[in-house]
Amino acid sequence: MPPPRRLPRLLTISLLPLSLALILRPLLKLPSSLALPALETNLGFAILAFVAVVHLIPALGENFIKAGLKGRDMLKTYDDPIPECQGLICAAVYITLLTLFIPFPFSSFFARDRDTSLAGLAKGDFPHQQLATYLSALLSFLAATMLGLLDDLFDIRWRYKLPIPIIASIPLLMVYYAEQGLTTVVLPIPLRPFFGTIVQLGPLYYVYMSLLSTFCTNAINILAGINGVEVGQALIISLSVALNDLLYLPWPYTLRVGSKVLGGEWGAGLAFGSKELVERHLLSLYFMLPLIGVCAGLMFHNWYPARAFPGDTLCYFTGMAIAAAGILGHFSKTLLLFFIPQIFNFLLSCPQLFLIVPCPRHRLPKLNKDTMLLNTSEADLSNEPPSSLRDLVLQLLAFLRLTRLTTDLKTGRITACTNLTILNVLLYWFGPMSEEDLVVRVMLTQCAGSALAFVVRYGVAGLIYDGDRR
Amino acid sequence: MPPPRRLPRLLTISLLPLSLALILRPLLKLPSSLALPALETNLGFAILAFVAVVHLIPALGENFIKAGLKGRDMLKTYDDPIPECQGLICAAVYITLLTLFIPFPFSSFFARDRDTSLAGLAKGDFPHQQLATYLSALLSFLAATMLGLLDDLFDIRWRYKLPIPIIASIPLLMVYYAEQGLTTVVLPIPLRPFFGTIVQLGPLYYVYMSLLSTFCTNAINILAGINGVEVGQALIISLSVALNDLLYLPWPYTLRVGSKVLGGEWGAGLAFGSKELVERHLLSLYFMLPLIGVCAGLMFHNWYPARAFPGDTLCYFTGMAIAAAGILGHFSKTLLLFFIPQIFNFLLSCPQLFLIVPCPRHRLPKLNKDTMLLNTSEADLSNEPPSSLRDLVLQLLAFLRLTRLTTDLKTGRITACTNLTILNVLLYWFGPMSEEDLVVRVMLTQCAGSALAFVVRYGVAGLIYDGDRR
Repeated sequence: MPPPRRLPRLLTISLLPLSLALILRPLLKLPSSLALPALETNLGFAILAFVAVVHLIPALGENFIKAGLKGRDMLKTYDDPIPECQGLICAAVYITLLTLFIPFPFSSFFARDRDTSLAGLAKGDFPHQQLATYLSALLSFLAATMLGLLDDLFDIRWRYKLPIPIIASIPLLMVYYAEQGLTTVVLPIPLRPFFGTIVQLGPLYYVYMSLLSTFCTNAINILAGINGVEVGQALIISLSVALNDLLYLPWPYTLRVGSKVLGGEWGAGLAFGSKELVERHLLSLYFMLPLIGVCAGLMFHNWYPARAFPGDTLCYFTGMAIAAAGILGHFSKTLLLFFIPQIFNFLLSCPQLFLIVPCPRHRLPKLNKDTMLLNTSEADLSNEPPSSLRDLVLQLLAFLRLTRLTTDLKTGRITACTNLTILNVLLYWFGPMSEEDLVVRVMLTQCAGSALAFVVRYGVAGLIYDGDRR
Repeated sequence: MPPPRRLPRLLTISLLPLSLALILRPLLKLPSSLALPALETNLGFAILAFVAVVHLIPALGENFIKAGLKGRDMLKTYDDPIPECQGLICAAVYITLLTLFIPFPFSSFFARDRDTSLAGLAKGDFPHQQLATYLSALLSFLAATMLGLLDDLFDIRWRYKLPIPIIASIPLLMVYYAEQGLTTVVLPIPLRPFFGTIVQLGPLYYVYMSLLSTFCTNAINILAGINGVEVGQALIISLSVALNDLLYLPWPYTLRVGSKVLGGEWGAGLAFGSKELVERHLLSLYFMLPLIGVCAGLMFHNWYPARAFPGDTLCYFTGMAIAAAGILGHFSKTLLLFFIPQIFNFLLSCPQLFLIVPCPRHRLPKLNKDTMLLNTSEADLSNEPPSSLRDLVLQLLAFLRLTRLTTDLKTGRITACTNLTILNVLLYWFGPMSEEDLVVRVMLTQCAGSALAFVVRYGVAGLIYDGDRR
C-alpha cells in the first residue's frame, strides 16, 4: 500500500486561520461583508471540517484496524489491511460542528443590530422556532451514523438493511408532525384541472419523506465498489444542492432577463423576496456546506489508490443529510433530479436485484493484473434454465448498448452478459481502463447528471409549473 | 454458563396489552383517569421498553459475541463468552421510544379538549417551546451512546475517557444557550447576606452542567465489577429521581400537615401551584420512566449469575439521561444527593486513583473457588518505597474501618491494605459472602442513600432554604 497522503503544510497553515476568522468574525461583531453572518460562520465550519477530517483519518487509522474495522482493496495487487468505516470520522466531525453551530443562527446574538429591512429576511437569520426542526435533523443524522456503524460492525443482511434509514428518519418525521409541517404538494399545470393546484397528501407525505431518505441512502450505497466512488457521489450531489440553494439567497447584483428582474439584495435571488424560500434554502445550505467539507476531506484519502474506505456509515449519514436538506428545504423533486445517475444505475440493476438475471456475489469490474486495467465483469448464464423473460430483457438492454451478451454460436443461447451496473456500462462503452480513469468517468457522469438536473429544473419545469412554489 | 433467563410467558402476555392500552388510550380519545394523558403514554412506553429489552437481549446476544463484543465473567469458574455492551440495546430501545413519544406531549393533539383551569398546568401538557430542549436531551443521549460504543470498541484510555461525557453534553448546553436558559442558583439562607438570594453564574453555569454529566457518567462507571451493580445503581437512582418528580405533580388528594396544605389536584403537589415546577418535573419524569423500564429489562439478564454485561455504553447513556433530568428539571443539587454512595466510593478511591496508594489493574473482590465466596482484594505494598503520606492516609482509613491493613510484625511497616472501594468495605465489614449477597448489600446501601437524600432534601434543607425554588 502506498504511504498515507499528507495535506501540504502550507495549505493547513492557511486554511485554519481562514476558517477561524470566518467563525469568530461574527462573534467579535466586526462588520460583515455578507448579509448573512451565520452563513459566514457555517462556511468557516465547513473549512474546519475539511481540515479536521484530512488530519484525523491518518491519525486514527491504526485504531480502526486494531478494532477490526478494516478491509482489503479487491482491485489491487497488494493485500494490506485498509481502515474501513472512515465515514464515522466524517460523521463525528460533521455532527459535532453542526452542534457547535447551533447558537449562531438560533440565538438572539445576531438579532440585535441587524438591518431588518433586507427583503426576504426576518430579524436575525432565522426564526427561533426552526431550532426544533434543525435539532430533529441532527438527531436523524446521528441515528443514521449509529445504524451505519452497527451495519459495518454486525454486517446486517440486505433485507434488514433496506428499511434502516426509515428508522433514522423517525426523529425528523416526529418533529415535522409536532410542528405541524406542510403536507401539501404543488401539482404541475397539466394536472391541475383534475386535482387542483395544491394537493393535501396528509399521512402519505410522511411515507414519502421516509422513502426519500431510504432512497438517498441506498442510492449512494448501491453505486459503490471502486476507490472514491461513494464519497465522490456524495460530494457532487451536495455541491449541486448547495449551488441550487445559493440561487435563492440575496444576490449582490441584479440580473435583468428581458422584462424579468432576477435576484439582487432586495429581491433575494430566485426567491423573489419570499422570506420562506430564503429561510428554507438557508437551512439546507447550513447542512450542505459542512457536508461538502467532510466529504472532500475523506475524498483526499479515499481517492485512487485508497488509504481509507468510507464504509456503510458514510452512505447512511450523507444520504440522510442530503434527504433532510431536501425535506426541510421543501425541494425534494429537485433533489431527486440530482440523483439521475443513481436512478439510472438502480433501474439498470433491477433485473439482477430481482433475480430475473442471475446476480453474482460481487458485480465489481475485474482487474487484469498484467495490464493493471479494469475490465467488465460478467454474470454466467450457461448453467441457468432457459427463460424467455430473461432473454427479452437482456436483448433489450443489449440493443440499448447497456450490456454485452456472449452467445453460444451453436445453440444461439445467451451464455453470459456483463453485469448490470453503471461501472460495467462505462467499461463496455470506453473499453478497459485504469481504476482512476473509471472513477473520473463516473464523477463526470454525475456532473453531467447535475447539469441536466439544472436544465430540467429551471428550463423545462417552467413549462409545467408556474411561479407558485409553496 | 447457566441457560438464558426467559420472562414467564404470562407476564409478557399481560404486560404488552397493558402498555399498548396506556399508549393508545389518549390517541383514541378515551376518557383518561389521569390529569396528564402524555404521562400515561410515557408509562406505557416504559412498560414496552422493559418487555422489549427483556426479549431483545437473549435474541441478539449471539450477534454481539460474533462481532467481538464479549467478555468473560472474572468471578466465575466457567469461561464462556458473555455478550458485552448490552447497554447498547437498552439505549437503542430507550431513544427510539423517546423519539416516538415526541408527538404526545408536544403536538397540539391533546390541547384541544383539555381542562385548562387545572392549577400548575398550561393548555396541553407542555409548552411547545420546550420541544427544542427535549430534542437536545435526546441528541445528548444518542451522542453518549455513540461514545460509549466507541469506548467499548476501541477501549479508550482513562485520561481520554473522563472528558467524553462533556462532548456528549454539548447539544444540551448549546440549546440551553440558544434558548437563553436560566443560569442562576438560589443560595442557602446563611450565605444570602453576602451574595444575595440568587447568584448569576453566567458561563460558570455551563461549566457546572457539563461537569454534572461527567460526574453522573463516571460515578456509575467507577462503582462496577460484579454482576448487576452498574445497572442496579442506575435503576435505583432513576427510581429515586422519578419518586422525587412525582411529589411535584397534581395529587389526587390533599394532605394537611398542621396549618400547611400539601398537594391536591389544584395545588399540584409540592409545586404549590407553580406551573414551571410542574413542567420541569414532568419533563424529568418523561426521561426517567422509560429509563427505569430499560434498566429493569437489562437487570433481568445481568443479575447474578449474569447472562449479559452492560458495557460502558450503559454507564454513558444512563449517566447522561440522569444528568439531563437534573439539569433540565433544575434540581441538580437534589440529584447529587441520590449519588451519596457513588460520592463516598469516589472519595474512598481517591488515594488509589491519585496513586498515593498503589492501584492494581483490577480492584475486584477475589473469588475463593473452594467456598465460592468473595473475599476482599488487597493492594500489595511490600515492594513500595516508604511514604509517610501513604501511611497517614491508610492509618486514618483503617481507623474509620474503611480498609484492613496487614502489618509486618518485625518492621512495623504496612505490607498490604484492602483495595479502597465500597465493595471491599462491605466485604470487610460483613465478612466473605457470595456475589449475589454482595450485590444485594450494594443495592441496599444505594436505597439507604436515597432515603437519606430525601431526609436531607425535605427535612434538613428546610433549615437553610426557604420556599424560594427558582
